[in-house]
Amino acid sequence: MIKVGIVGSTGYAGAELVRLLLGHPDAQIVWYGSKSYVDEKYANVYRNFFQLVEDECLEDRLDDMADLVDVIFTATPQGYLAGLLSEDILSKCKVIDLSADYRIKDVKVYEQWYGIEHKSPQFIEEAVYGLCEVNREEIKTARLIANPGCYTTCSILTAYPLVKDGFIDPNTLIIDAKSGTSGAGRGAKLPNLFCEVNESMKAYGVTTHRHTPEIEEQLGYACNQEVVVSFTPHLAPMNRGILATEYASLNQVTLPDGSVGYPTDEMIRNCYKKYYDNEFFIRVLEGEATPETKWVEGSNFLDINFKIDPRTHRVVMMGALDNLVKGAAGQAIQNMNILFGLDEKTGLNLAPMFP
Amino acid sequence: MIKVGIVGSTGYAGAELVRLLLGHPDAQIVWYGSKSYVDEKYANVYRNFFQLVEDECLEDRLDDMADLVDVIFTATPQGYLAGLLSEDILSKCKVIDLSADYRIKDVKVYEQWYGIEHKSPQFIEEAVYGLCEVNREEIKTARLIANPGCYTTCSILTAYPLVKDGFIDPNTLIIDAKSGTSGAGRGAKLPNLFCEVNESMKAYGVTTHRHTPEIEEQLGYACNQEVVVSFTPHLAPMNRGILATEYASLNQVTLPDGSVGYPTDEMIRNCYKKYYDNEFFIRVLEGEATPETKWVEGSNFLDINFKIDPRTHRVVMMGALDNLVKGAAGQAIQNMNILFGLDEKTGLNLAPMFP
Amino acid sequence: MIKVGIVGSTGYAGAELVRLLLGHPDAQIVWYGSKSYVDEKYANVYRNFFQLVEDECLEDRLDDMADLVDVIFTATPQGYLAGLLSEDILSKCKVIDLSADYRIKDVKVYEQWYGIEHKSPQFIEEAVYGLCEVNREEIKTARLIANPGCYTTCSILTAYPLVKDGFIDPNTLIIDAKSGTSGAGRGAKLPNLFCEVNESMKAYGVTTHRHTPEIEEQLGYACNQEVVVSFTPHLAPMNRGILATEYASLNQVTLPDGSVGYPTDEMIRNCYKKYYDNEFFIRVLEGEATPETKWVEGSNFLDINFKIDPRTHRVVMMGALDNLVKGAAGQAIQNMNILFGLDEKTGLNLAPMFP
Amino acid sequence: MIKVGIVGSTGYAGAELVRLLLGHPDAQIVWYGSKSYVDEKYANVYRNFFQLVEDECLEDRLDDMADLVDVIFTATPQGYLAGLLSEDILSKCKVIDLSADYRIKDVKVYEQWYGIEHKSPQFIEEAVYGLCEVNREEIKTARLIANPGCYTTCSILTAYPLVKDGFIDPNTLIIDAKSGTSGAGRGAKLPNLFCEVNESMKAYGVTTHRHTPEIEEQLGYACNQEVVVSFTPHLAPMNRGILATEYASLNQVTLPDGSVGYPTDEMIRNCYKKYYDNEFFIRVLEGEATPETKWVEGSNFLDINFKIDPRTHRVVMMGALDNLVKGAAGQAIQNMNILFGLDEKTGLNLAPMFP
Repeated sequence: MIKVGIVGSTGYAGAELVRLLLGHPDAQIVWYGSKSYVDEKYANVYRNFFQLVEDECLEDRLDDMADLVDVIFTATPQGYLAGLLSEDILSKCKVIDLSADYRIKDVKVYEQWYGIEHKSPQFIEEAVYGLCEVNREEIKTARLIANPGCYTTCSILTAYPLVKDGFIDPNTLIIDAKSGTSGAGRGAKLPNLFCEVNESMKAYGVTTHRHTPEIEEQLGYACNQEVVVSFTPHLAPMNRGILATEYASLNQVTLPDGSVGYPTDEMIRNCYKKYYDNEFFIRVLEGEATPETKWVEGSNFLDINFKIDPRTHRVVMMGALDNLVKGAAGQAIQNMNILFGLDEKTGLNLAPMFP
Repeated sequence: MIKVGIVGSTGYAGAELVRLLLGHPDAQIVWYGSKSYVDEKYANVYRNFFQLVEDECLEDRLDDMADLVDVIFTATPQGYLAGLLSEDILSKCKVIDLSADYRIKDVKVYEQWYGIEHKSPQFIEEAVYGLCEVNREEIKTARLIANPGCYTTCSILTAYPLVKDGFIDPNTLIIDAKSGTSGAGRGAKLPNLFCEVNESMKAYGVTTHRHTPEIEEQLGYACNQEVVVSFTPHLAPMNRGILATEYASLNQVTLPDGSVGYPTDEMIRNCYKKYYDNEFFIRVLEGEATPETKWVEGSNFLDINFKIDPRTHRVVMMGALDNLVKGAAGQAIQNMNILFGLDEKTGLNLAPMFP
Repeated sequence: MIKVGIVGSTGYAGAELVRLLLGHPDAQIVWYGSKSYVDEKYANVYRNFFQLVEDECLEDRLDDMADLVDVIFTATPQGYLAGLLSEDILSKCKVIDLSADYRIKDVKVYEQWYGIEHKSPQFIEEAVYGLCEVNREEIKTARLIANPGCYTTCSILTAYPLVKDGFIDPNTLIIDAKSGTSGAGRGAKLPNLFCEVNESMKAYGVTTHRHTPEIEEQLGYACNQEVVVSFTPHLAPMNRGILATEYASLNQVTLPDGSVGYPTDEMIRNCYKKYYDNEFFIRVLEGEATPETKWVEGSNFLDINFKIDPRTHRVVMMGALDNLVKGAAGQAIQNMNILFGLDEKTGLNLAPMFP
Repeated sequence: MIKVGIVGSTGYAGAELVRLLLGHPDAQIVWYGSKSYVDEKYANVYRNFFQLVEDECLEDRLDDMADLVDVIFTATPQGYLAGLLSEDILSKCKVIDLSADYRIKDVKVYEQWYGIEHKSPQFIEEAVYGLCEVNREEIKTARLIANPGCYTTCSILTAYPLVKDGFIDPNTLIIDAKSGTSGAGRGAKLPNLFCEVNESMKAYGVTTHRHTPEIEEQLGYACNQEVVVSFTPHLAPMNRGILATEYASLNQVTLPDGSVGYPTDEMIRNCYKKYYDNEFFIRVLEGEATPETKWVEGSNFLDINFKIDPRTHRVVMMGALDNLVKGAAGQAIQNMNILFGLDEKTGLNLAPMFP
């Protein structure tokens, strides 16, 4: 039984870790960490857990936690873990960080986009970017996992095969992403009030959202070149779900008949299959079906499909996931499963809930 | 492994049976019955099941199904099962009926409220009303289970202890229930369009809703007298969930000090505890917490609490459940678990999803 | 042109006053008062008014405002106006108070339910309860209007004719009300976040909501006896709208044929017609149509209908209004129109917006 | 008083025409045309109009209507008006067509994208594309107005100034649009059910949506070259509103200092001001404010803002409108006002409703 500690268990991502870990046969939460609700019953903070969790919230003491647990999940604001992580902690237990602190290899890029100083750059190098389907092998032996962001998981995986195999020009990539409001967290802020969000759509963080460099770095690894993308997040009036609609110009390639031209629908489909056919959590839809966030709600699935536009020689790629599951807690547990040699699906084999 | 056939698997309740049974370790769906989607891939009808269900929909042939399966769930319109059920079928497999056909013992009452003739009244007597927490013993040996309605499960269980122990006058009972729109089914009808439901609340079926006699019959058994209630359902702009707010006049009773008077908060609370403390799926909330549908979403829980009004000598009882789970598919599987001697929680031990 | 000052113009009710007054041909807002946004452009606080309102928010200085304006609307927390109102102010301009400070004639009842001391009880007597359709004549000559609450406007007017004419026993009245979230105000509080409200229903303030004594007092005037009701408000996942479903036992009355018995549908309908046929803003629906909040959205209408239950000898009354219009700002302007001798519909003749 | 006939008054766009025309001081609806609800009371089809509209629906007889009215609005499916329009009708009254029949000058393009034969191509030439802010002069003297589509109005006007003045390369234009569900109409179709739309986002009509050629044609006129764009519509869980997020590569231009380079924020802003500063219904937001559909709900405003991305040398343009108002009925009435020499704002001077 894997002993689990959660730092920041009272945010939405933390609560989703709890929901999923309660159904995990090989894991047990022994520390419900919190900053705002210390000594309060966890089930009073999230009443869905009434009679399912009897624990009270404890302080977020990373050092003490490390002595007790096999793995720590940190669902905390940016900079928090970077300020506390130590060799001692990493020598005692695995750390899966849901914040951005160790996602970006170039500390300067991190400090520029996040506007804070990185307090423990010495751990950046060893941290493994926990995009399971891409970095599975490196994850297995890691001590520190940088769990990808919600927008980034969706944005990267939707474009990854086509970028990696050279079917699209990565510098023409435009990502228009729509997110449910749980991505904004549980802080009591006016813009997240029901009446402000309901019946509305808006873009935010236009050209400056912090998930941009994370997307660019990972897609850059895929194609071995520097990548610059346009990324625009939007707030949608729903609780969960991210839909990324991505546009890129197709490269001319060698076609099956030996000529040079734009790739066919079949070539693009085969490229997705090549990378994802054996990936349980990535479902490449068939035919004209477009991904809908509702069809993956509550599950760890990412649904993908695409459409070639012969008029513009662009491809429109679409990906949908649940921002709290594959975009946060689910992928974190998938990482835990890999780290501890379990079947990746353990505790995550939930059918999406519809309606 | 219990072999399961579902008649009407392409309605919302049917799809919820599929979602839950996919996670049930001891059950396997072998027949996805449908009227409208025969020969179509089930996962094309409900895309959440893409790559999880490979089966195609089959005709709703009850007789053939009975030869193949251990249990049949019928999630069908009123009158359907009554027109087809036979001794032969019941001799071959268990039947759990999610329609109203065998819920009401007095066939005249059924025919009056439903406006149709009952085609197989001979089975009404043996049918067991599958309100698990109340009729568990009878369920164990039944062949035919009449799975309770969504409104009724919520309405009855919320008032049941107080009715049974005489704390309230059942004929003063007023039930004001609010339901999510999945209760209206997947039929393409104008009143269920997004734009008609969203941002709106309305009552419907005022004084005439068919769940009324079902509530009255069951509460009548609890207190051994005829019961007549006011029941008003409302349509709320949400997918799932029923909240029943119930009002009744308190009876004067013998108090702990021997005097006669209105029951105290503690007496009412103890009454709920007496019946529900050992019931995993019924959670009597603490203190002033009021049930919210969101806190039970996706789960088989029914959350209950109450408030005494000393000014009116009434008690306000509140109950919340997920209409597709404890109000339909979840309770049906709970019944299946009882019928087959399994732990009632098997396949149903899901924490509610929030947000 | 009536010069208007608004104290608390940056709450939702204040903003609705602005929306409606911008379309009022005989009124002009000259003071946008605010506590939190002084010196900020009003249109930055509510961006729907961009290029429509160029003013900046001013402090809520009641005295100075009184020198400049013909009427002050106070859309402020309870106790605010009671602490500042003076004979001097009332001698200079009309005051229409959207808070509860002068709604309840018995200061003890106010202090008990609101938990605060009333600082200017001397003005309670002269304040006119601004339920336009009931108190029109008294309103005409008032200096101080106590604008009714949102729940109360809906609850009282829906039952008023039947209470007044003795068709129902007011002490059996049970009011189950469902409100959109704008009723909770624009404060940044966790329970009002989108993810906490969306896809959920809950009761709150059970047996203790402050609108209870206001309903009881007004219905008491209607039938000349003390009235005690059960009132339960609920939070619904929508921006606007209140639906009140009200239950009461019918009194036996003299029937048209001279016998004594329960009133007929026609008698009840005629009673509603008697009071509301000439009221533009109250629409008694026909036949079986039930009021829906969406059908009155954005307008000053209250839609009402009823259904007699011959089985329980109760009547179910239903009323729907927009909580920010007829439940707050719209009725306040209707009061202003009466005070200044204008047609009551001036500036309020807006068709509801659907969908 | 302008006499108005509406063909297709029982669709959502038709009902919005009714809502707005009821508040128009110089227009009067004399014919409520309908296909499905002939002889039914209009207020029974749209209960928001109870007691506001007493008329019954009449057949959609265009010829008879033309004898009675000054202007006909056709809110009908594609191909309907093209099959019925005649010189006789146009000689008797103005026609404002909310369908696509006369929007596209090249009949081949129309027939290809819409998949139907055009039955009256002889009127295409004289039809004026009713994008008021662009074609105001031509509208004044037209007999037949092709009222623009909802997506197109938003998409074109948001990019128009930058395309016209050469600041962006129109063939790099990518339009990602999100629409409320009223855009899908009032037909009882499964994909538009509440439970299918709520809590979900999806793209549809990817690369093939019929508004694409309309956008391309109009932007082509602006820059005098053929334009090919990527346009992707999305369905969002809200009633009203379209948000278009548009991406395009900036052209290098002559800068104020005489050098050549990418345009500055100020240059782009001035370009928008040049075209829209005097346009009442187009509001170019200030600073970093991003358009939100909620801030224009119920009104005829289009809110626009933009952000330059110096990393990609792209500009992100954002536009938000109410699809039923500026995207349909509101613009149609704006066209009527121009046609009849009225102030364009007549009957349309409504502040947006928030929340």
